[in-house]
Amino acid sequence: MIVTLLTDYGRTDDFVGVCHGVIRRIHPGAEIVDITHGIERYAVRQGALVLRNTLPYMPTGVHVAVVDPQVGTERRAIALRTGDGRILVGPDNGLLSLAWERCEGVEVVVDVTRSPHRLEPVSATFHGRDIFAPVAARLASGAELADAGDPLDPETLARVELPEPREEDGAVVAHALVIDHFGNVGLNLDHDRLAGTGITLGGHVAVEAGGERYLATYAQTFADVSPGELLVYQDAYRTLALALNRGDAAGTLGVGVDAEVRLRPQ
Amino acid sequence: MIVTLLTDYGRTDDFVGVCHGVIRRIHPGAEIVDITHGIERYAVRQGALVLRNTLPYMPTGVHVAVVDPQVGTERRAIALRTGDGRILVGPDNGLLSLAWERCEGVEVVVDVTRSPHRLEPVSATFHGRDIFAPVAARLASGAELADAGDPLDPETLARVELPEPREEDGAVVAHALVIDHFGNVGLNLDHDRLAGTGITLGGHVAVEAGGERYLATYAQTFADVSPGELLVYQDAYRTLALALNRGDAAGTLGVGVDAEVRLRPQ
Amino acid sequence: MIVTLLTDYGRTDDFVGVCHGVIRRIHPGAEIVDITHGIERYAVRQGALVLRNTLPYMPTGVHVAVVDPQVGTERRAIALRTGDGRILVGPDNGLLSLAWERCEGVEVVVDVTRSPHRLEPVSATFHGRDIFAPVAARLASGAELADAGDPLDPETLARVELPEPREEDGAVVAHALVIDHFGNVGLNLDHDRLAGTGITLGGHVAVEAGGERYLATYAQTFADVSPGELLVYQDAYRTLALALNRGDAAGTLGVGVDAEVRLRPQ
Repeated sequence: MIVTLLTDYGRTDDFVGVCHGVIRRIHPGAEIVDITHGIERYAVRQGALVLRNTLPYMPTGVHVAVVDPQVGTERRAIALRTGDGRILVGPDNGLLSLAWERCEGVEVVVDVTRSPHRLEPVSATFHGRDIFAPVAARLASGAELADAGDPLDPETLARVELPEPREEDGAVVAHALVIDHFGNVGLNLDHDRLAGTGITLGGHVAVEAGGERYLATYAQTFADVSPGELLVYQDAYRTLALALNRGDAAGTLGVGVDAEVRLRPQ
Repeated sequence: MIVTLLTDYGRTDDFVGVCHGVIRRIHPGAEIVDITHGIERYAVRQGALVLRNTLPYMPTGVHVAVVDPQVGTERRAIALRTGDGRILVGPDNGLLSLAWERCEGVEVVVDVTRSPHRLEPVSATFHGRDIFAPVAARLASGAELADAGDPLDPETLARVELPEPREEDGAVVAHALVIDHFGNVGLNLDHDRLAGTGITLGGHVAVEAGGERYLATYAQTFADVSPGELLVYQDAYRTLALALNRGDAAGTLGVGVDAEVRLRPQ
Repeated sequence: MIVTLLTDYGRTDDFVGVCHGVIRRIHPGAEIVDITHGIERYAVRQGALVLRNTLPYMPTGVHVAVVDPQVGTERRAIALRTGDGRILVGPDNGLLSLAWERCEGVEVVVDVTRSPHRLEPVSATFHGRDIFAPVAARLASGAELADAGDPLDPETLARVELPEPREEDGAVVAHALVIDHFGNVGLNLDHDRLAGTGITLGGHVAVEAGGERYLATYAQTFADVSPGELLVYQDAYRTLALALNRGDAAGTLGVGVDAEVRLRPQ
């Protein structure tokens, strides 16, 4: 089975390369896909969202995710099988929770903190290398999930919470969930949520963010507006997003993760 | 056949990882080479130059390139076979044109905008995932090019134009074509073009850029000059380039893409 | 055999992708691990340290390293077999020396500057593509080391020197060896070196750097101290390091590579 990796390790250091090496030592010929290593450091919720969004595009396999501010403390390390047959491996801090919700829930989960597959001595700061990668490599090469650790009750697992959009004074109040490196801002809204708000594809939208008000077009794609103009669009994961054609919407509007963004028909 | 990827997606987000996943879902065991994902955003000509330069070092395969400011509009998506047997896949905006010129021209080309191989629903903003990667994966796993889309006349394809160097007042007037992340500046000049100009290997060259004049050495390699000194050299793709030994020539001289650079024997 | 790559090429340009292409043209189906391409430009000693630290986590294979300020000059290009059966390939500037010391020394070494496996014409600035990658690909696909170049005396090879920690006025005087992109500062100290200094796990440590004095905890992991607090810890390669929980220790303390860092029990 394929192994996928999603982390906040970045590409500058050797962390990712070492995980690849560890996997290949245990499972020669492994196929590895790096979903991304650009999750913002310690941004567990962002990691959880990206994992949830991208997993449907990955072959069924062993999916490792590491965004782990509590590495080396008592937080558990887990491996689980979802209802649709994927294996997820990572820290028990909610990082995997949005993905398993989308993949028909948790069927079986084990605590791999002291897995027989781990590399000893386990360091206090690099569980990607010492626990998650070697456990994933064994599972990808056919080891049983039940042999990777001690059984856990799925109800005890940590989950991440997402803010809910609401309506207020005729506006839809959304939140910035994910900002990509182009500055496009993903919101906690999908197209259906706009039914009855008066915001329609092709129309104008007033966008309030950071105390300022901007005019945007609800468009299909960047090139539907002029360079430098703001648009609201349905992004590739079918959630609504803000962008500036050929520009950086998050930077220009001063919108960070979790910021409130109000949308009104115009 | 191998699949190569060249894009302006960057490595921070999940775009590249998702394309890898899509390819492997369709073509398990695919060999994928990431030529680069660091093309400057929307820099079609830079992408075209880098694709042309690097393709001879790649195994013959399916070569995907995505630098696509017009994604989601009427611009076509294409797949083509070159005279020397490579398959190129990407937007019809000139990005592929310098590569096919170097690879013995276009033998067959099809419009894959509504390819049977695409992932539906096709998003308006991520054709790498929904069109280019899946079409490439099918072609790499043996599908016929003719079955990937509707036939097109090669004469109708978009091409990129390159500026021509010229001589003026005893100087060679060149243009900055590509700037790498070390700040080395690739020019639209090759060594042969210097015949008769008086500029010779080992000699000095006056370099005029941004209204300023600098003294450089026409050297073979960086270490032929002292740290901090300017050199003109034949780069690894056999075109002339400017560099500062252990420094950033583009930044120091204030030279951006398309800037004029005048060279004179000294 | 697997091929691993460690360079200062960065990921923005096409240098790494081209090396992958060259390897796969010669050795179809090659397994390649990118240990890192984020070594600071020309930082030979940093490259040597990272190669030494990471190699034990890699399958035995052909290990290419390129950090090469003298590319194109008379410095030799080498390929060697270590006592424990790994093949190392790179410039003869000390980059490989810490790795071979850890891998039971040099058994055989050849000069590959004019290797029959090189790509001709060899450029003056991109030996990764023209010498190191093709030589490595041939060796990985079974070619004999003795056929890759001319025999050399291992005693003539360049080595890197590391500073030694010392004691002075009751303080341990260490040096910053490697700084990762989170700002964690690896020192030339291991835990054993602290025996008798009064610095003990869980205790406080006065850290002097750049003329300032800070208070740190000698902790096991980041989360053992509050966000923004300084810690000394044993890093994943079992050497002592400085970090700021959720912060950038190197930036905050103004510590660069080679800076002296004094530690005292508190």
